[in-house]
Amino acid sequence: MTSSLPEPIRKLADALKELPGIGPRQAIRLAIFLAAQNGAVRTLLTDGLSALGDVKLCSRCFFPTSPQSGLRPQQGVGASTDMTGDLCSICSDTSRDHSIIMVVERETDLISLENTGKFRGRYLILGPVPKIGSLPDWQKDRLGTLKTFVHKEFKGQAREIILGFNPTSVGDFNATLIQKELGGLAKKISRLGRGLPTGGEIEFADDDTLGAALDSRS
Amino acid sequence: MTSSLPEPIRKLADALKELPGIGPRQAIRLAIFLAAQNGAVRTLLTDGLSALGDVKLCSRCFFPTSPQSGLRPQQGVGASTDMTGDLCSICSDTSRDHSIIMVVERETDLISLENTGKFRGRYLILGPVPKIGSLPDWQKDRLGTLKTFVHKEFKGQAREIILGFNPTSVGDFNATLIQKELGGLAKKISRLGRGLPTGGEIEFADDDTLGAALDSRS
Repeated sequence: MTSSLPEPIRKLADALKELPGIGPRQAIRLAIFLAAQNGAVRTLLTDGLSALGDVKLCSRCFFPTSPQSGLRPQQGVGASTDMTGDLCSICSDTSRDHSIIMVVERETDLISLENTGKFRGRYLILGPVPKIGSLPDWQKDRLGTLKTFVHKEFKGQAREIILGFNPTSVGDFNATLIQKELGGLAKKISRLGRGLPTGGEIEFADDDTLGAALDSRS
Repeated sequence: MTSSLPEPIRKLADALKELPGIGPRQAIRLAIFLAAQNGAVRTLLTDGLSALGDVKLCSRCFFPTSPQSGLRPQQGVGASTDMTGDLCSICSDTSRDHSIIMVVERETDLISLENTGKFRGRYLILGPVPKIGSLPDWQKDRLGTLKTFVHKEFKGQAREIILGFNPTSVGDFNATLIQKELGGLAKKISRLGRGLPTGGEIEFADDDTLGAALDSRS
């Protein structure tokens, strides 16, 4: 469909199409935008991409971190000497309670939870659980890192693991899957509470939400 | 909301946010994706962006063109010597009828129309008409380029100008606006035909569409 487009735009569109949530049509629109109008945005993007080289994943929670924002493992509570990468600012924060671990699928889930300012434990970014119902090796490795951490720091049992999955049937399924994988690793395994969202209306709440709100009334 | 993110990711997200249709949340998600997992996609993007340097806008229709895909103005039908840029492959195609001009808002509209293989005239990419109901200078300049072209090549009157705007109330409004701007520049000024879309169902068609289908029955 793009035969009328110059080669460089087609190539850039092909690259943009590889990004999550960008379809072929939006990729073309973006490539044309970048070609036609925006030297400034183009420079910003190129600079931004090249600066990414510094970014690594936190060796404990797998949140992206850069040398500026993280600290060396030795400075964190419960740091293990076999972790060679940097710790992120959360994992290296000694004032946080590292025996409470929130497992989330996405980095953006962590950001939203951090914005509440109400969680003072640490995280594990698991990545999106695939729909086939079993984990690929790299996700098993992340859970393995958590297990090693809990074994070394808390003699095999953390205080609490919160399964921060979405309140959907897929999220429920994934939580069950991960709970099995983590069996016995924490004194308490919990999920985020369900009920009426702030700003919602009782009249329009679905049965499940309203039922959960009744169960969790306070 | 992104204070927990490393600086390079925040900066890249800020750049991505400048792209049309990318919101702040998606920008963060994309930046994290690029940082965390994809050296390959990152390289594709960087290469793609740097190759854009060659791309210019066709001096006649303003569709992006690169030295490889376009030809020098002299080779096109009705080429004017005062146009210094390259012509795109459509504007330099001597087998097309340059006295029929389709005015569209977006490059992607042109691509969709070209895919039909049914239009053999030329185009003018006007860019999205702003909602304030008057054109900024650069859009007036594009219309000016068209006027100059028609005056030089067809003594001030093209055979037909098709206003290729969306079949919406906004599109109708814009078509009226542009028709005024172009008054007298073509023997015929038309719009794209309205009726039932292929694959649509009469039962579910809205009144306007069905009314148009009755008017345009064949």
